[in-house]
Amino acid sequence: MERRPAKVRPMGTLDFWFEFASTYSYPAAMRIGALAEARGVTVRWRPFLLGPVFKAQGWDTSPFNLYPNKGRYMWRDLERICAALGLPFVRPTVFPQNTLVAARVALTALKQSWGEDFCRAVYHDEFGEGRDIGEPFAIADIVNGFGQNPDAVLEQARTDAIKNALRAQTEEAQRIGIFGSPSFVTADGELFWGNDRLEAALEWAKR
Amino acid sequence: MERRPAKVRPMGTLDFWFEFASTYSYPAAMRIGALAEARGVTVRWRPFLLGPVFKAQGWDTSPFNLYPNKGRYMWRDLERICAALGLPFVRPTVFPQNTLVAARVALTALKQSWGEDFCRAVYHDEFGEGRDIGEPFAIADIVNGFGQNPDAVLEQARTDAIKNALRAQTEEAQRIGIFGSPSFVTADGELFWGNDRLEAALEWAKR
Repeated sequence: MERRPAKVRPMGTLDFWFEFASTYSYPAAMRIGALAEARGVTVRWRPFLLGPVFKAQGWDTSPFNLYPNKGRYMWRDLERICAALGLPFVRPTVFPQNTLVAARVALTALKQSWGEDFCRAVYHDEFGEGRDIGEPFAIADIVNGFGQNPDAVLEQARTDAIKNALRAQTEEAQRIGIFGSPSFVTADGELFWGNDRLEAALEWAKR
Repeated sequence: MERRPAKVRPMGTLDFWFEFASTYSYPAAMRIGALAEARGVTVRWRPFLLGPVFKAQGWDTSPFNLYPNKGRYMWRDLERICAALGLPFVRPTVFPQNTLVAARVALTALKQSWGEDFCRAVYHDEFGEGRDIGEPFAIADIVNGFGQNPDAVLEQARTDAIKNALRAQTEEAQRIGIFGSPSFVTADGELFWGNDRLEAALEWAKR
């Protein structure tokens, strides 16, 4: 009699919603890979734009700029968090940054093997080195570092297909109640918000 | 030769700033005692009012009411947190609640041995049982449960000394940059905000 293979328990999945301008998404992006792997959870990286989400709440910039006390606190808190994690941190001069090109390129790259590394590299340049990633040449530089052709990638990122995909993804984020970044959504629809909820989200996804 | 006693390392101290209307302050208030004791940190309970703080930011109610997506998320998140901690949770019908009497009585009670228990009891009634603690009789009921004379305590809470002390405490909170509850402030001035920062604040206080 043929022996049946042991049934493999399907791994949990987790959607990782992120906006490149978001400060607390930096440690989340740097942490999620290893933490998910340790729990056998598959992560889907889903870039979106917070601008339209904030606009719907009546904000024309980051709440960290609108509410100075909160902003001052956030920068110090982020500095402490990065220090505890051993992550480099340099506060960028420009905040929030224009992340349209980065998000479009991420959507392109995430269809390929270097997508997640690209996202981490953007966060690293922005908050680990304090650079402005808003300019296409800054993104081209990162793309180039992965041995990709920047012109081809940026051209691809400017296609209607990618523009529409990013718009659709941002609309989906709003539709499912996302109001900030990072957000994590499990297969059964549980929403978790914030770098400090990453572990809880992964545990939920694993159940 | 007389032997000198071993030098006792002074324990760390931590100021716990809280507003009774604040949802995430409920798990913080329930957790802080044991966690601080385990680390040898002394906690000073400091009730204040968020109303003036929010007003200074242009809000006339809780941001959880002003931003429905955020509010919906917070209630679900709080429910999950309480479940994980084994804390009872019933969403109160009234939110945010009028906490003026509770805060004044807390200032009175915290000068006595039943102060911290009183604060925990208020949070329990409000978020563990979903009751309205805004009415003086609800507070009188809690006071009574500690074998105290409600009339005497409420009269004491209405004195100018207590009214002024609460006003001064709220102004101090604003002066040191507090913008939400719970907040934790170490002796060297580090500010931590949120139930999810309680452990980090205690670790900082212990250093």
